[in-house]
Amino acid sequence: MKAYQELSKEELLSLQAQLAAAYEDAKGKGLKLDMSRGKPSIAQLNMAMDFMDVINSESDMRTEDGVDVRNYGVLDGIPESKRLMADIMGVNADNVIVCGNASLTIMFDTVARSMTHGVLGSTPWCKLDRVKFLCPVPGYDRHFSIMEYFGIEMINVPMTPNGPDMDMVERLVAQDESIKGIWCVPKYSNPQGYSYSDETVKRFAALKPAAADFRIYWDNAYAVHHLYDDRQDEILDILTECEKAGNADMVYIFGSTSKVTFAGAGIAAVASSKANLDAIRKSMTIQTIGYDKINQLCHVRYFKNFEAVKAHMRKHAEIMRPKFETVLRILDNELGGLGIGQWTRPNGGYFISFDAMEGCAKAIVSKCKEAGMVLTGAGATYPYGKDPKDSNIRIAPTFPTTEEMEMATELFVLCVKLVSVEKLLEEK
Amino acid sequence: MKAYQELSKEELLSLQAQLAAAYEDAKGKGLKLDMSRGKPSIAQLNMAMDFMDVINSESDMRTEDGVDVRNYGVLDGIPESKRLMADIMGVNADNVIVCGNASLTIMFDTVARSMTHGVLGSTPWCKLDRVKFLCPVPGYDRHFSIMEYFGIEMINVPMTPNGPDMDMVERLVAQDESIKGIWCVPKYSNPQGYSYSDETVKRFAALKPAAADFRIYWDNAYAVHHLYDDRQDEILDILTECEKAGNADMVYIFGSTSKVTFAGAGIAAVASSKANLDAIRKSMTIQTIGYDKINQLCHVRYFKNFEAVKAHMRKHAEIMRPKFETVLRILDNELGGLGIGQWTRPNGGYFISFDAMEGCAKAIVSKCKEAGMVLTGAGATYPYGKDPKDSNIRIAPTFPTTEEMEMATELFVLCVKLVSVEKLLEEK
Repeated sequence: MKAYQELSKEELLSLQAQLAAAYEDAKGKGLKLDMSRGKPSIAQLNMAMDFMDVINSESDMRTEDGVDVRNYGVLDGIPESKRLMADIMGVNADNVIVCGNASLTIMFDTVARSMTHGVLGSTPWCKLDRVKFLCPVPGYDRHFSIMEYFGIEMINVPMTPNGPDMDMVERLVAQDESIKGIWCVPKYSNPQGYSYSDETVKRFAALKPAAADFRIYWDNAYAVHHLYDDRQDEILDILTECEKAGNADMVYIFGSTSKVTFAGAGIAAVASSKANLDAIRKSMTIQTIGYDKINQLCHVRYFKNFEAVKAHMRKHAEIMRPKFETVLRILDNELGGLGIGQWTRPNGGYFISFDAMEGCAKAIVSKCKEAGMVLTGAGATYPYGKDPKDSNIRIAPTFPTTEEMEMATELFVLCVKLVSVEKLLEEK
Repeated sequence: MKAYQELSKEELLSLQAQLAAAYEDAKGKGLKLDMSRGKPSIAQLNMAMDFMDVINSESDMRTEDGVDVRNYGVLDGIPESKRLMADIMGVNADNVIVCGNASLTIMFDTVARSMTHGVLGSTPWCKLDRVKFLCPVPGYDRHFSIMEYFGIEMINVPMTPNGPDMDMVERLVAQDESIKGIWCVPKYSNPQGYSYSDETVKRFAALKPAAADFRIYWDNAYAVHHLYDDRQDEILDILTECEKAGNADMVYIFGSTSKVTFAGAGIAAVASSKANLDAIRKSMTIQTIGYDKINQLCHVRYFKNFEAVKAHMRKHAEIMRPKFETVLRILDNELGGLGIGQWTRPNGGYFISFDAMEGCAKAIVSKCKEAGMVLTGAGATYPYGKDPKDSNIRIAPTFPTTEEMEMATELFVLCVKLVSVEKLLEEK
């Protein structure tokens, strides 16, 4: 295939007519596809239905240390659930607090607490004129929403296949005391599926921030979410690296089983240093009597050990892999060599990131929508919803079936081609 | 019996010797009793174990409107759970948001949101020099802890058997713009078990607060927690009364099933006006993708309707009533007419409130502890843990068995007598 940029105006016009006709055909099909969010599929959820049998009316409802999970008590998670989450998050159980059903809520609460109470004795952020966070881009829209909600200024930091641009991160945090944090999805990043290299993690751990209350928000959402048996990304334990670098308090790690058992009905956890966890516990004793220990116990009884989690996730991978491969196959076949898009090939996680020609993302998403396919809004992967190049589109292949993903991707590449041709024609 | 105040010094001294000997005996028994918190008993929890069978691997996991509860989606509660909580809270389902496992967390989050974002457009409280709340006393220590945590000043308002002193409430809220709220447990109040009269509720609804962002925090924790079939307190629906009075936005109602199904593993809800709920939803979309819908569905499938909730709570009452009656019988028999204590006789809720002679509560709690019985800390029922009269003690009869409650109350009255005699001797 010839790159679109090399086509003459006449060739482009003829191509446009051809693509427009195909698009009208596609619209006529009355498709109803949703690739907007990173949701588990029905097959993944069905696979875990035996979870519902793990506790019944005859079950012993006590933890290993004899606590009745049906009653009040135990602020920061039952011990066995701490071990399970520690294994998933790659940390020690002593460094873990198990909370409710969503790591997003823990992240929100962590920022909210910093706003009203500061961080280990620092000035509450709501008393400061300016608070800023670094945001590797593209990134996760819900992280950015928390920032906007609290009026925290976001600074874009470019992502690379090895993680954020660390030169820029090191320089900015060292010089600006108003920078209080950075959002990271270190493994199978959202949306690119990149995993931070060992060097990146070590450079994070060795940061010398101007602000004593600077924290790394390490959202390890896809810790065990590999797509392949033989190609698995692993990242260094940031907590250990921070300790080694004398920065033990500099990181909060977040994780959950939302995409392991049930989305929105899993258990979530935060891992950090003792000093940070003590501060969290201090505010937790005010905010709650304790989280849902029955669900914590269900998770432990269901999995028993970390090996079972990994086996379970291999079954997830079997369901998800064909969908990712279908998307990649169609992207390769249909767009390879055309010069109108680039995409990532992640080994895990929930997304493929697509970069269209500059100025095309919004139009592509809108064209897809018109033909019955919902994508994550263009710009959503950037702070304030503003992708400076209007280029990035997040593809979420997990929820639809493989057949639906095939139809969806075919429609997607059609829209990419059509919008790209129109863009190139504008410029002729 | 003669009142202790009428005894001569000699009589008091002889009584003291007798009581001290009995106390030494009691201490020798090595008791280990806990009346400190309002926890359901094991019998109550066992009674609900069929809850664990209500959903199994064969269950249809969709809501009545077809949503898969195992996946993301539905921010503010599945419709059928809203109806269930609305029935329990005595409001319309349209006015309800169902959240996670604890109403305390909803209350905390509501105050936290007001701190950082204000209330329906008002100045965020963290930007104000002073924020105050009215606290009917004695009251619930965890409400007061939220206030202390956020540096909100608490003003004591005396409770009466009909509710807070409304003359004082009306006067204070009308004159002081820094008063932003009041904490109420309107039914079977914690700790006295008082229920607000219709007049009290109407006066609340008709308040004319100086602060537009003044809100009534209506913690209807014991809405269906009656002890008797034939003596049940009912309160007016504050939301309807507020609407009638042109104060639709002035109240948040909180409730949960923590003491209906399982403590800490129930579902919690907030009820309010559409404007208030929209503001809550706006911040919820940032804080969470949604709460645990599987547990919401379990609750709905378990109870099916409100009649079943009431039947369930009648069984709770059968378990709890003998404990309350045991405490009251021993208090009546042992302390009646002695002039050294007064106590409440609630028709529901989780507590009996005891007022010792002034200056005796701390000493009584401490004496009980020394003999192996933990009570809620003296002073805990007051803001800042400071009972100005050092008189109030909260008795929580629910968790121990009836036999344990009998032993506990006998030890309690012994300590009351001993401390009272010592107090009277000091004054001689």
